[in-house]
Amino acid sequence: MKQSLLFIPTLRDMPKDAEISSHKILLKGGYIKQQVAGVYTYLPLAYRIIKKIENIIREELDKIGCSELLMPALQTKDLWVESGRWDAYGKELMRLKDRHDREFCLGPTHEEVITSVVRDYAKSYKKLPLALYQIQTKFRDEFRPRFGLMRGREFIMKDLYTFSTNQEDLDQWYEKIRNAYICIMDRLHLKYRIVNAASGQIGGKSSEEFMVLCDIGEDTIVYSDSSDFASNYELYPLEVGAPSPDGMGTIKHAKGIEVGHIFKLGTKYSEPMSLTFIDVDNSKKPVIMGCYGIGVSRLLMAILEQHNVDLKVLWPKSVAPFAIHILPVDKQGTDGFKLACEIEETLENRKYEVILDDRNESLGVKLNDADLIGCMYRIIIGRKAKDGILELKNMETNEIQELTIDDIKNYQY
Amino acid sequence: MKQSLLFIPTLRDMPKDAEISSHKILLKGGYIKQQVAGVYTYLPLAYRIIKKIENIIREELDKIGCSELLMPALQTKDLWVESGRWDAYGKELMRLKDRHDREFCLGPTHEEVITSVVRDYAKSYKKLPLALYQIQTKFRDEFRPRFGLMRGREFIMKDLYTFSTNQEDLDQWYEKIRNAYICIMDRLHLKYRIVNAASGQIGGKSSEEFMVLCDIGEDTIVYSDSSDFASNYELYPLEVGAPSPDGMGTIKHAKGIEVGHIFKLGTKYSEPMSLTFIDVDNSKKPVIMGCYGIGVSRLLMAILEQHNVDLKVLWPKSVAPFAIHILPVDKQGTDGFKLACEIEETLENRKYEVILDDRNESLGVKLNDADLIGCMYRIIIGRKAKDGILELKNMETNEIQELTIDDIKNYQY
Repeated sequence: MKQSLLFIPTLRDMPKDAEISSHKILLKGGYIKQQVAGVYTYLPLAYRIIKKIENIIREELDKIGCSELLMPALQTKDLWVESGRWDAYGKELMRLKDRHDREFCLGPTHEEVITSVVRDYAKSYKKLPLALYQIQTKFRDEFRPRFGLMRGREFIMKDLYTFSTNQEDLDQWYEKIRNAYICIMDRLHLKYRIVNAASGQIGGKSSEEFMVLCDIGEDTIVYSDSSDFASNYELYPLEVGAPSPDGMGTIKHAKGIEVGHIFKLGTKYSEPMSLTFIDVDNSKKPVIMGCYGIGVSRLLMAILEQHNVDLKVLWPKSVAPFAIHILPVDKQGTDGFKLACEIEETLENRKYEVILDDRNESLGVKLNDADLIGCMYRIIIGRKAKDGILELKNMETNEIQELTIDDIKNYQY
Repeated sequence: MKQSLLFIPTLRDMPKDAEISSHKILLKGGYIKQQVAGVYTYLPLAYRIIKKIENIIREELDKIGCSELLMPALQTKDLWVESGRWDAYGKELMRLKDRHDREFCLGPTHEEVITSVVRDYAKSYKKLPLALYQIQTKFRDEFRPRFGLMRGREFIMKDLYTFSTNQEDLDQWYEKIRNAYICIMDRLHLKYRIVNAASGQIGGKSSEEFMVLCDIGEDTIVYSDSSDFASNYELYPLEVGAPSPDGMGTIKHAKGIEVGHIFKLGTKYSEPMSLTFIDVDNSKKPVIMGCYGIGVSRLLMAILEQHNVDLKVLWPKSVAPFAIHILPVDKQGTDGFKLACEIEETLENRKYEVILDDRNESLGVKLNDADLIGCMYRIIIGRKAKDGILELKNMETNEIQELTIDDIKNYQY
């Protein structure tokens, strides 16, 4: 891929309105562009990463038997009246009327719609359980949108809903999905904690939040370090911001960004909305629901918060926009530049994702921009290229190797 | 994939409100569910196909140097006032206010937003050309939504915009994109025509439509059969619905579904919205734009219209929800059923997309539903399974082979 065609509108100066490093990078690096407060365009660099995050989520959820669908953003008032949320939700719900004066809202979440989709079908225990998810643009009219993608008014979310005949089945799904979330967070190379949480607007009995640790997080996590832990997360039965009980080891405080939230909803929606089924014993019962969210666009920022040092970016391999960045010192038309194109083609044929900085800019400008793009490997085609020697730099280890052209083409990145 | 988990809520009876066969199949086969007129949920079966259509589009556009981004659905009134379309667009534009009483619309198309995104950046000829696209949910408040996904109020579109410094460059992009569209339509196994067209609301000087031939199409295409043609399409310089000029061979009439539309916009948006650049000669000029749409959700219906016979479906391989449908006659827990699961696992490990009908239904019910799902191959695990013999049916040729279990597992589908 030629960098000039990718549309990366970098800013020369540091954006003044951005307070946190991920937000600064997203603006300065040409990842996103604000249209109005809390509403952004995801430019090609950001959108490449988002698609990778989405596919990791899909893979982990499909693996445990979830199915993907796509519900509409437009939701009728009727449905929200059924659940009782039309009045309860308040000003965060974006409302509109169609040409026939019928009232709608733009979905901030989809419990009502999914319940209405499933209730005409799941009339017997034979049709259950079900686990249905979507990755979709959501709308929430935040009073004070801020921190870029952290708290937006239009954002991308994965929302998943389970439908069970009994509590044990819900518990099993909850556990399976919780484990899938752990796999997802680990594949995204995040440091995070799972904490008990209040259920907020969505309701339900039991819920946990996945918190990415980060100085600029909006929530305070109180936790202890008494247990063993095997992953990037530690699990403690503590509430966000709640005082810590005794006897749990050293008490620690951290700030967190909520990127996932899992709920045991129970019958909060199925009862008022008549989502019932006939059980084995011929009795009619409400379906037991769970719901499970991941903030996809917010994850982009959370990963970036943990994967930059002084605004220099190094994306985890699993979501990096490209694996390899080719930086020719010479300009278009030169032998060095032609060599760069040849290497690009070879590596792309080998199925690597490669970006070639084809702009007629100085190496200094190219390197500065490369620090914002954050690929793991850099191939610098400089003065020694005429002798057949190129530089390969691993940005994780900072190791620089001088390699021949054939070595570069055949290297295992 | 187990069919019971996929959520395919088939209907027992033929839906009364559906007039055309693709719409009937989508409803009866559990592909889509209407929320309100013109607003649908894409259920898992439909959404699998839509994702495949999207990826074919992505591959062909990326190949010619286009870059994908994602713009917001929420668009400010200001932008639409700049282009002059806020008043011109009329009731099809869905409008709303945020909590601060600021006016927005839900994007039916994104010329305004993309122009505003590019104009702060493309200030020099050095930054051009650019070709940017997105695949996104659009909103259009149709007076009379109908035919399911054919004319909806919320639908999925691919919209692409090019930015050139001169007319020749626009012409080149137009040609490249037109060829990419031909590749896309061919990969989707569509019979279609490319016709000259009126430009409608979007404006511009020159435009062509990609019309999928179909008895239920809303447009009449008048064309002649005088030329050679090498693909599934024939190109004639005729307007939709216009009388045919003389001397062009036999005149034919056909009905068509518009699935693609390509425009040379020129400066229609760049002039009023001040999208200008400094050219080589230091003069300031408006950027020359093109725009290019594909109706993604409508394509699903168009493909289905051409790929069903008496409501029995056979999806083209490139977009089929699954390659292979495994149908065990015996119920869960039996040896036959276990064998079905074993074959499913083997084929999935071989990277085939497989669906296994694990429901405790009769073979008759399973076969009827399989006719709606429309996979190319069926493996029927019936009475002879205990002797190690299974049936493989190719749904395109109707050929049935009796094969051993090992043959089935190692077959090249």
